[in-house]
Amino acid sequence: MKIAIMGLGVVGRGVYDIITSRFAPEIEVKTILDLLPLEELHCIHAKSIDEIVNNPEIELVVEAMGGLHPASDFVLKALQAGKHVVTPNKQMVSTIFAELQQAAAENGVKILFTPSAGGGIPWLYNLVRTKRCGGIEAFRGIINGTTNFILDSMEKSGADFADILKEAQRLGYAEANPSADIDGIDIQRKCAISSNLAFDVQLDPARIDTAGIRRITGEDIRAFRENGLHCRLLCNGEKLPDGKICAYVEPVLLKEDAMEGHVPANFNMVFLKGPEVGELGFFGQGAGRYPTAHSLVEDILDIRAGLGYTGNGPQAEIDNRSAVHAYYVRTEDPALRAMAREPFGPGFLTGPVSVAEMHGAVRAAEAAGHETFFAAVRA
Amino acid sequence: MKIAIMGLGVVGRGVYDIITSRFAPEIEVKTILDLLPLEELHCIHAKSIDEIVNNPEIELVVEAMGGLHPASDFVLKALQAGKHVVTPNKQMVSTIFAELQQAAAENGVKILFTPSAGGGIPWLYNLVRTKRCGGIEAFRGIINGTTNFILDSMEKSGADFADILKEAQRLGYAEANPSADIDGIDIQRKCAISSNLAFDVQLDPARIDTAGIRRITGEDIRAFRENGLHCRLLCNGEKLPDGKICAYVEPVLLKEDAMEGHVPANFNMVFLKGPEVGELGFFGQGAGRYPTAHSLVEDILDIRAGLGYTGNGPQAEIDNRSAVHAYYVRTEDPALRAMAREPFGPGFLTGPVSVAEMHGAVRAAEAAGHETFFAAVRA
Repeated sequence: MKIAIMGLGVVGRGVYDIITSRFAPEIEVKTILDLLPLEELHCIHAKSIDEIVNNPEIELVVEAMGGLHPASDFVLKALQAGKHVVTPNKQMVSTIFAELQQAAAENGVKILFTPSAGGGIPWLYNLVRTKRCGGIEAFRGIINGTTNFILDSMEKSGADFADILKEAQRLGYAEANPSADIDGIDIQRKCAISSNLAFDVQLDPARIDTAGIRRITGEDIRAFRENGLHCRLLCNGEKLPDGKICAYVEPVLLKEDAMEGHVPANFNMVFLKGPEVGELGFFGQGAGRYPTAHSLVEDILDIRAGLGYTGNGPQAEIDNRSAVHAYYVRTEDPALRAMAREPFGPGFLTGPVSVAEMHGAVRAAEAAGHETFFAAVRA
Repeated sequence: MKIAIMGLGVVGRGVYDIITSRFAPEIEVKTILDLLPLEELHCIHAKSIDEIVNNPEIELVVEAMGGLHPASDFVLKALQAGKHVVTPNKQMVSTIFAELQQAAAENGVKILFTPSAGGGIPWLYNLVRTKRCGGIEAFRGIINGTTNFILDSMEKSGADFADILKEAQRLGYAEANPSADIDGIDIQRKCAISSNLAFDVQLDPARIDTAGIRRITGEDIRAFRENGLHCRLLCNGEKLPDGKICAYVEPVLLKEDAMEGHVPANFNMVFLKGPEVGELGFFGQGAGRYPTAHSLVEDILDIRAGLGYTGNGPQAEIDNRSAVHAYYVRTEDPALRAMAREPFGPGFLTGPVSVAEMHGAVRAAEAAGHETFFAAVRA
């Protein structure tokens, strides 16, 4: 099988290394599309997507460019030219999910994207495999390493958010512009992709209620630890009886015996729930060159073996009114403060509030200039 | 596809329930072999294995009888009659691994045994899938729910071993004769099966150094907790550079941030290590009617889809001399007490000792009538 790699950055280079060291000559990296020079690599250095789509030898394209454009244009061209695609690009997959599935189906090829949610963890793969027997009822978990590193480090060191974020940036766990991670956007996309495969639907990621950890302070963390609670940023997805999907991303306060509270450093751990199998959990590196590249290579091997998955369910509505928790809130916003039941550390605890109501109230508070941190209390 | 179920006990009935409720009529339970009457079930009630092997309609046999005989005789007959087999029977699979693989290969059928190590967790399946890309370097983890329940409950309640064992028996987590679980024999078998698939070898399970938790006391646990340590019974497997396998089962003392120390109740969690993917962990129910039956049904679906795995490596030697730890030991045995470096709770800590040496010394102590509990200290 001859393949092309689009984008020879961190992950693209990882795929090149694994394929050439472990699978050549059965799998050959024929062409690389990248703006930078690649003198030392034994393959064609393409300057244009046309050199890939017009080469009938190439059966499969690895998209490792990231971002929405031009990655999605190139991927659609590759699918339309009858080439399989594998990609870790969560922004692209979550944004144009239906279009990608349709283009693959119309051209008799596959698009697999296992590392787009979970990095090196075979999360999406196992979600699809488990679904065969009775479907998936719900999923939840830690699916972003940057924010888990920040929360775990704040707990263990007592340091404040800004200092730990700098440390994460120094270690390469956080981007120079960390917004996609710390505001939960990265998790929102992964939550959409996981829902699409788990529940056979298509969700608009922008409609998933999402809160991050930008506002958390060392004082919050100290209050949590004094009460035996761990704070983690979790994604949640559940199929409701009426076919709507409950899907949201928010910080959660976990009791001492919850597994998620002990996921260390930049690791991820995601759980699914099935009717007979109960809870299954999947732990590993959610990012990084070789874990992500490993997962892309697994996708390539699956396509080569005639395996893989498709996701082509109907658009589904998100309804977060039935998920109800007590929340920890720290804010100066009067409307939110009116929800206080009892003081807790630098903030307060509410009574039971729905996810829809709480996220709406916090968006209104932030829009009014009242900086707010909140976290659900896991019953 | 028409199938037969041999043994309508806890797991066999679970498979019957899932197949008839979710997969009929595409998959049909045609025949059940059981000594008890089955009036209410719509299938043939066979009294002899011949009624299954001589029925050309039956493509696949679910072995859910347990034990070595007559289960293995019936499974070999089924394979020789050209019928696929799925089984959760760790005793049978670990004891006659090569014979089963050979019978399946010679007759052009498959034998899958995913629940034999991990119950409802797709552990063996993911081990084989991950292996495709660079092999498996090592695995370790909690793969017995009974002993995890006992250790977790002793930690949380402060109660002593005998009381918690009774509670586990009352809840159905431990057998009336608990030896296979508490002495580590169940884990020894799962460790052999995991090694066989991970490293493409065949291990004699009886040669895996194995220690259980029969001797642990509430006083031991209190000393561990006072030092911030959790005790768990772990399996370990590693491929050595010379092709030998390091494989052993022993209690381990884990620091507060180790994931295994927080696996609750009767859950299991097993980790693999691959060259590029790093650590992956798999969490779930390692036993129980519906989790185990779910995993058997997944095996049936894989066979129906033409998938599955084989394990046909050469016999390999076990060598536990290179795995070296400090140990906690509590004993009156003079030879073991001579290894003491410093006192620790009701026992003492040794310096670095190899697994081979420590297990040998403890077997000698027990043979001399000196009851001994020991646990490795994870560095």
